[in-house]
Amino acid sequence: MSSPIRVTVWNEGVHEKTHEEVRKVYPNGMHAVIAEALQGAGFTTRTATLDEPEHGLTQEVLAQTDVLTWWGHMAHNRVEDAIADRVAKRVLEGMGLIVLHSGHMSKPFLRLMGTTGALKWREIGERERLWVVDPTHPIVQGLEEQIVIEHEEMYGEHFDVPAPDQLVYVSWFQGGEVFRSGCCWNRGMGKIFYFRPGHETYPTYYQKEVQQVIINAVKWAAPVQLPSVTYWHKPEPLEKF
Amino acid sequence: MSSPIRVTVWNEGVHEKTHEEVRKVYPNGMHAVIAEALQGAGFTTRTATLDEPEHGLTQEVLAQTDVLTWWGHMAHNRVEDAIADRVAKRVLEGMGLIVLHSGHMSKPFLRLMGTTGALKWREIGERERLWVVDPTHPIVQGLEEQIVIEHEEMYGEHFDVPAPDQLVYVSWFQGGEVFRSGCCWNRGMGKIFYFRPGHETYPTYYQKEVQQVIINAVKWAAPVQLPSVTYWHKPEPLEKF
Amino acid sequence: MSSPIRVTVWNEGVHEKTHEEVRKVYPNGMHAVIAEALQGAGFTTRTATLDEPEHGLTQEVLAQTDVLTWWGHMAHNRVEDAIADRVAKRVLEGMGLIVLHSGHMSKPFLRLMGTTGALKWREIGERERLWVVDPTHPIVQGLEEQIVIEHEEMYGEHFDVPAPDQLVYVSWFQGGEVFRSGCCWNRGMGKIFYFRPGHETYPTYYQKEVQQVIINAVKWAAPVQLPSVTYWHKPEPLEKF
Amino acid sequence: MSSPIRVTVWNEGVHEKTHEEVRKVYPNGMHAVIAEALQGAGFTTRTATLDEPEHGLTQEVLAQTDVLTWWGHMAHNRVEDAIADRVAKRVLEGMGLIVLHSGHMSKPFLRLMGTTGALKWREIGERERLWVVDPTHPIVQGLEEQIVIEHEEMYGEHFDVPAPDQLVYVSWFQGGEVFRSGCCWNRGMGKIFYFRPGHETYPTYYQKEVQQVIINAVKWAAPVQLPSVTYWHKPEPLEKF
Repeated sequence: MSSPIRVTVWNEGVHEKTHEEVRKVYPNGMHAVIAEALQGAGFTTRTATLDEPEHGLTQEVLAQTDVLTWWGHMAHNRVEDAIADRVAKRVLEGMGLIVLHSGHMSKPFLRLMGTTGALKWREIGERERLWVVDPTHPIVQGLEEQIVIEHEEMYGEHFDVPAPDQLVYVSWFQGGEVFRSGCCWNRGMGKIFYFRPGHETYPTYYQKEVQQVIINAVKWAAPVQLPSVTYWHKPEPLEKF
Repeated sequence: MSSPIRVTVWNEGVHEKTHEEVRKVYPNGMHAVIAEALQGAGFTTRTATLDEPEHGLTQEVLAQTDVLTWWGHMAHNRVEDAIADRVAKRVLEGMGLIVLHSGHMSKPFLRLMGTTGALKWREIGERERLWVVDPTHPIVQGLEEQIVIEHEEMYGEHFDVPAPDQLVYVSWFQGGEVFRSGCCWNRGMGKIFYFRPGHETYPTYYQKEVQQVIINAVKWAAPVQLPSVTYWHKPEPLEKF
Repeated sequence: MSSPIRVTVWNEGVHEKTHEEVRKVYPNGMHAVIAEALQGAGFTTRTATLDEPEHGLTQEVLAQTDVLTWWGHMAHNRVEDAIADRVAKRVLEGMGLIVLHSGHMSKPFLRLMGTTGALKWREIGERERLWVVDPTHPIVQGLEEQIVIEHEEMYGEHFDVPAPDQLVYVSWFQGGEVFRSGCCWNRGMGKIFYFRPGHETYPTYYQKEVQQVIINAVKWAAPVQLPSVTYWHKPEPLEKF
Repeated sequence: MSSPIRVTVWNEGVHEKTHEEVRKVYPNGMHAVIAEALQGAGFTTRTATLDEPEHGLTQEVLAQTDVLTWWGHMAHNRVEDAIADRVAKRVLEGMGLIVLHSGHMSKPFLRLMGTTGALKWREIGERERLWVVDPTHPIVQGLEEQIVIEHEEMYGEHFDVPAPDQLVYVSWFQGGEVFRSGCCWNRGMGKIFYFRPGHETYPTYYQKEVQQVIINAVKWAAPVQLPSVTYWHKPEPLEKF
């Protein structure tokens, strides 16, 4: 693709308004920090949040989005079903989707996975170590074999998602758990990457390696020039018999 | 499992009432033929159809079902959302699901896959050859490397489903297409098998090899004694630090 | 299968002779402990070791073996190439193979994987926690969601093996690493399970959960009644054209 | 990567010398036609053949090769073991490998797969249709959903290879068989693509779509900037306990 990848950074954006602790870390919202990193990587970047009309995800915005990143947590249920359906449909048509942290319970992600997204969690600010288990994957390009995040929320297995098409990262937590932290799936014409880190009270999205993973994931998830697949009724056989 | 596997054979059962051509092939409905084969394999078998209250799929019936087989076609939309949700939920809790032929567009299957289920199709009664591509799989146990069905509807790629966790059969069609005809997925605690053959106007479900695949699939999809997985909040770490 | 599964438990058996520390834990060799557990599960079990003629793995023994378990460490290079080839060939023909711990560098395993089998390791007796990541798998049937081993050698990622066809266990180590500890692969007509725990100086193979995993793996890896696949030259087409 | 991908096109090159029928189709050898197509795509391309010293695959040549394409058939056994080992090792270190047609029985491919590579075949010049089953894959970028090759050798399932990490193409043959024709595997730090078409007596490698698949595969298989993975002994834990 010769023109820059177009990214929309979606954020629920509620914690930042209601929790002083979160506002201190992300005074302009998490989306601002993520978008700045993506902008710096050369992508055409915009943001959208829950409180905008249609959550900022109009048909027009989605049609102009190559890759959507999604962060949500306390207000998953306030996302309208019609918008969640629209996002999922657009992914099936080819838009990339990067699901961040607590987005594992978001409506678009659960529609696309078909599972509950359930997991274990604990919030005591423990250390997380993300280990590369697929060093050939474009998403780990240019990174070290390990990312250490000093303070994070713990997510532990079992993570109720379909077995990833490619498993890129597995996390170690100080308290004794492991987690499949970087998971790739293809769905329809679209690519989906789930990336675990990013609790709202820690400065995770300021960390350069975390930003690099998201940047690489955007490149990986951007649509390729798809074959024009045809579906449904084919009255004539291709072969005579 | 010492006690017999309990199977519920679900059939939309509309074609058999409205199309003389179908009634001639399946005078008591497709479910009767499938259920008889499964009964003969030693499973505890019952049937359920669209027109029964709650489509025959009450909470109680599902709770007593280890594996559900599903055939539907012209009335997918008449399946109530609440029942489709109930079936999908029960699969995620461990019930096996065998989706037959046009069931690829059924509500429970699409909820569990997260994709459109789209494909190509043609109805001229051509020959289908199903080739084993994973000879180690329990589902092909005791079968030949190929199943030939003299007259079938064609389904052609691209089939818009997630890449199967295991691909067991690929079909060849006389008219020039191929299709991933036997696909396995794990979702939640449940196992799902999609098996392509079974157009309503052909005696496909009388064919012994087709019956044997479904029998094997039921055994494969029956729940194992699952570990008791715990989810959600874990206030205390397992390790001190 | 109506007759019992026939298992051959192979052990290098050198540490037990040369290291007092190991002899104290496994006075009759590791193979004796593993074989006793498998015998107790109802399998027809025999043992074989490096020092026997043909390492105890004659054509006849292998022909009568449904599943082979393999433990080796310091003497991988003393396994004759011809015997390693024979074992690998027999796996491709349908024999199951359970590779234990340091068997990740054994000749049969590397021949079947095609990769280096490299990994990180550390031997300070730290705690290992094996977490189930695929609760539907027959190998975890009847087990808890976690196995804790108080003292083990550490193996850390990256583990240079092909992405497993099914990933069953991921390990957490006290020192900060993770590892894909329970991995399934199909190769040819055979099934392979790699199971990480089992350092020679710890009583790991006495632990009931570890034994249960190996028992379940034997059942999973035992050959099914395979379709008789035909290969090579087919002069006549199946279809006329 | 800012500098062009460096490709080495390897060809056994025996048929072209000994079979008039092949020489007529490929007067300068198949490698000349493949190399010209890759050169035209902007890659830095060289060729190498069996009869050159070290088969043209010296340490130096391999060290300067990002992606190697391999065609061989009647002289697999004349490839020296040391060279086959060298190629396989270089793939594990990160070089991409594109295995063409009868290369499914080549020494480097079999070493990397660990299986027999067996399949069915028939040589009557029948029609082949390659259908895309993963439209999101970079290897099908810019292509149609189907490639038709008017005359080809048939390869039929079962194809004895590990289940591909990604399955891209499935072939239909006029005579009744199917085949997994475009298969991707990761091994070590390297990526491998097997692409079925290319019998020596047909002008397959002149066909634009076939060339495009190989061009796309080269781009896909070219090494990424890998994380510097460390292996073996780690005496100190990362975490204190």
